[in-house]
Amino acid sequence: MPEVRVEEAQRFMEDALRAVGTPDSEARAHAALLLHADLTGHFSHGLNRLVFYINDIKNGATNPTAKPVVLKEAAATAWVDGADALGATVGHFCMDVAIKKAKESGIGFVSAKGCNHFGMAGYWAQIAEQQGLIGLAFTNSSPVMVPTRAKDGVMGTNPIALFAPAANGDSLGVDMASTAVALGKVEVQVHKEEPIPEGWAYGPDGKPTTDAQLALDTAKLMPLGGAEQTSGYKGYALSAAFEVLCSGLSGANSSYQIRSWSMEGASTPPNLGQCFMAINAEKFAQNHT
Amino acid sequence: MPEVRVEEAQRFMEDALRAVGTPDSEARAHAALLLHADLTGHFSHGLNRLVFYINDIKNGATNPTAKPVVLKEAAATAWVDGADALGATVGHFCMDVAIKKAKESGIGFVSAKGCNHFGMAGYWAQIAEQQGLIGLAFTNSSPVMVPTRAKDGVMGTNPIALFAPAANGDSLGVDMASTAVALGKVEVQVHKEEPIPEGWAYGPDGKPTTDAQLALDTAKLMPLGGAEQTSGYKGYALSAAFEVLCSGLSGANSSYQIRSWSMEGASTPPNLGQCFMAINAEKFAQNHT
Repeated sequence: MPEVRVEEAQRFMEDALRAVGTPDSEARAHAALLLHADLTGHFSHGLNRLVFYINDIKNGATNPTAKPVVLKEAAATAWVDGADALGATVGHFCMDVAIKKAKESGIGFVSAKGCNHFGMAGYWAQIAEQQGLIGLAFTNSSPVMVPTRAKDGVMGTNPIALFAPAANGDSLGVDMASTAVALGKVEVQVHKEEPIPEGWAYGPDGKPTTDAQLALDTAKLMPLGGAEQTSGYKGYALSAAFEVLCSGLSGANSSYQIRSWSMEGASTPPNLGQCFMAINAEKFAQNHT
Repeated sequence: MPEVRVEEAQRFMEDALRAVGTPDSEARAHAALLLHADLTGHFSHGLNRLVFYINDIKNGATNPTAKPVVLKEAAATAWVDGADALGATVGHFCMDVAIKKAKESGIGFVSAKGCNHFGMAGYWAQIAEQQGLIGLAFTNSSPVMVPTRAKDGVMGTNPIALFAPAANGDSLGVDMASTAVALGKVEVQVHKEEPIPEGWAYGPDGKPTTDAQLALDTAKLMPLGGAEQTSGYKGYALSAAFEVLCSGLSGANSSYQIRSWSMEGASTPPNLGQCFMAINAEKFAQNHT
């Protein structure tokens, strides 16, 4: 295996993003987001996705110079328009708002429309955790999940992330798709030339398959829980519940309205919906005397 | 099948609760909670649980005359001591606080310690939905879930509920345990004298079983997702994430500290942790012009 220095991977990604018109600070932030995924072993959300983001910028789906704006706010909430900016640009903007509100009001919650793919959901939750808060992040995504008793993909993998501070500098982190696996994990099996377990995905005939390439090409994932008798409808329900918070609240595209995301990029902004939440434990039992 | 009028079921439960010292209003509220479960087909959380609550009161684990109190609050949050009151008493108190805060601050979030079993989680989420808000409710529970790669039950079924208003008086409702199934569903299979599907529970030998009575007696449930290769660790992670919000924030008992709940009742209060959240869509895209 060839080795690449961490600094070199960061430099390469920054340069690539700058080459298509991304300002320095935004390129740095987005490269750091992808690098973090690789460094923590989530290769499905790291450097291997760079070409997707680059082509989205080249084709006009992502505006690398756009600035997110708050459309409406209350003491503990904000409705944001991500303005089709890069995922890291919108992620930092929204989580900073959520953290500020949580410090004052106990909890801060932001729902944003006009979003692009924001990489690992856990990255955003962890930013709150690093400031001593509990962080949560959710996003909707392309309709690759086939709901229980359905034939076609209509729900996203809609990941759920929560990071919480723990004793002695430790933390608890959860970052999971509401499908049995994320499509990126199927892709990793393709690259490893290994099959997938039964219970992950359907083939084009609507039956479960163990062929990784066929599963990737078909892009019809099973919800967490798998088949109906093992409660696959709960993974479907999780996806639907967080879809309400991501697109129902923000007015973003939802479920089947969302484009599929490919290496070639797209010209139409995906208008994803994303949520960012921070909870201030000092307003609860923490440090209580 | 003998038929019982709805009013008669409500009357019977109220009288039984009053007979062990529950005030009229609290008996009415708790009976309504259990009746709702039966009326919506969730027989595992209805009248069949009345004897548990009654014996908890008789043995001193539940104080039917106690009043919950707010220990600390901010614009959008409250930390509550449920004071070992009945589930419906604490549920109404906390969700009312969450709704009031959501109307003003966009979101309201309450984490409570000193709680008893509060019946269906969805009942509490739905109270917010009936006022035009998005409602969420979570609770921790007895350690019946065996985490991935573990031998013993240490996490609860920790249910997650979300109810959201929809067009034309419709609503979207999710109410699900983070185990493949709730223990009450295993109990229903016992009463029906039917086996359980593989992927729900372990027998005493630590292997999956399809024997419903054996599964009920062993009380070792699999997380949502089942085995490791079908991502059972995600159900475990969901349970852990919401455990942080229920007990980490409130200072309630957590995971293995929680007593098992039985028909005979207990003398020690369970000190469960429960969360109640309401989100005001008017502070987001709803009715935006």
